[in-house]
Amino acid sequence: MKFSKIPAATITRLSIYSRCLETLAQEGVKIIASDKLAQKCGINPAQIRKDLAYFGEFGIRGVGYFVKELLFEIKRILGLNKAWKMALVGIGNLGSALLAHQNFVRQGYEFAAVFDVDPAKVGRRLPSGQVIHHLDEMDQVLQGSDIEMGVIATPASQAQAVAQRLIAAGVKAILNFAPTQLQVPEGIAVENVDFTVKLDNLAYHLTMAEG
Amino acid sequence: MKFSKIPAATITRLSIYSRCLETLAQEGVKIIASDKLAQKCGINPAQIRKDLAYFGEFGIRGVGYFVKELLFEIKRILGLNKAWKMALVGIGNLGSALLAHQNFVRQGYEFAAVFDVDPAKVGRRLPSGQVIHHLDEMDQVLQGSDIEMGVIATPASQAQAVAQRLIAAGVKAILNFAPTQLQVPEGIAVENVDFTVKLDNLAYHLTMAEG
Repeated sequence: MKFSKIPAATITRLSIYSRCLETLAQEGVKIIASDKLAQKCGINPAQIRKDLAYFGEFGIRGVGYFVKELLFEIKRILGLNKAWKMALVGIGNLGSALLAHQNFVRQGYEFAAVFDVDPAKVGRRLPSGQVIHHLDEMDQVLQGSDIEMGVIATPASQAQAVAQRLIAAGVKAILNFAPTQLQVPEGIAVENVDFTVKLDNLAYHLTMAEG
Repeated sequence: MKFSKIPAATITRLSIYSRCLETLAQEGVKIIASDKLAQKCGINPAQIRKDLAYFGEFGIRGVGYFVKELLFEIKRILGLNKAWKMALVGIGNLGSALLAHQNFVRQGYEFAAVFDVDPAKVGRRLPSGQVIHHLDEMDQVLQGSDIEMGVIATPASQAQAVAQRLIAAGVKAILNFAPTQLQVPEGIAVENVDFTVKLDNLAYHLTMAEG
């Protein structure tokens, strides 16, 4: 099976399965039936089976999945059997909120270097321990580091220039919070976070309910 | 066609199509071929046709879609032909970042009321114009208002209690930024924003690339 042919939606669901399985493991659940897992994740059982089938055979028919084993396999598939180091650019309200958000560390993502251009911020040590570097120091800071991801939390007007700096410094994957479409060379992965897409889902549900 | 049978992923993609079409409309594009629209949205043409087919016939074979017409129809389907008013709870770094984010207003979402419990914050007027109410005033503030959505930007430990308050005050749809799973009664729609799911996608891409 060529991994490159896996639909993006399957990868997103694997990520959701891993979160459900983590909760189950914490609750001490050892084996879970496939329909129970489906219910827990809010995804239909046939979809789970189809998603997992891309990667091999999991679970035992009539019994279910071994929680820790499946979690381990999914994490291996996603590349989460290692910690990922990230560079964060933009230490405003959003950047600060991201640094404080417990989910990142819990899921194995670490903000290893942080950048801003504000002279009032550069050189300050954050509560989370990092010292804020100037954007101009990026090449130097990232050189020889194992930082492979960049997170952009700047205003939209700065995002493209920041993306280019990150890429020039060797970053191959970018999580973009700025409300703008980034232009990047082939081989660079970009994920955009647009909260309003989620709101559109809610608007649709409310409209249907009222309809 | 029963709208309730539409897959959630289709609704999410409609939301993405509407953003692409808006950009096209701003660029002055009047008609776009279906494969060009697909390319612009980063989604394959067959998927777009399938998604739209749930709602009727759009576009002209061999010509394409009329940009403004399709945008209007998608907005109508999603319920975005009206403005949505929201209550925001938690005016920390994340809440402040959300209030400042240009995408919400641009997409027709307005933070009509904001809440916190910090005595140092309650009563303050924000740069965006709203006065911060105490959480205990929620019923009173929301009564008779047309606020139908709630946004939770509190610490995880407070999120469930806040959700219950929002629901008691008549909110039917919640966007949850707190890293916790909310328990809500049937009929209440919840969307969780988990940034790390996007990072998992990036981790997968990097892992495949490094293969």
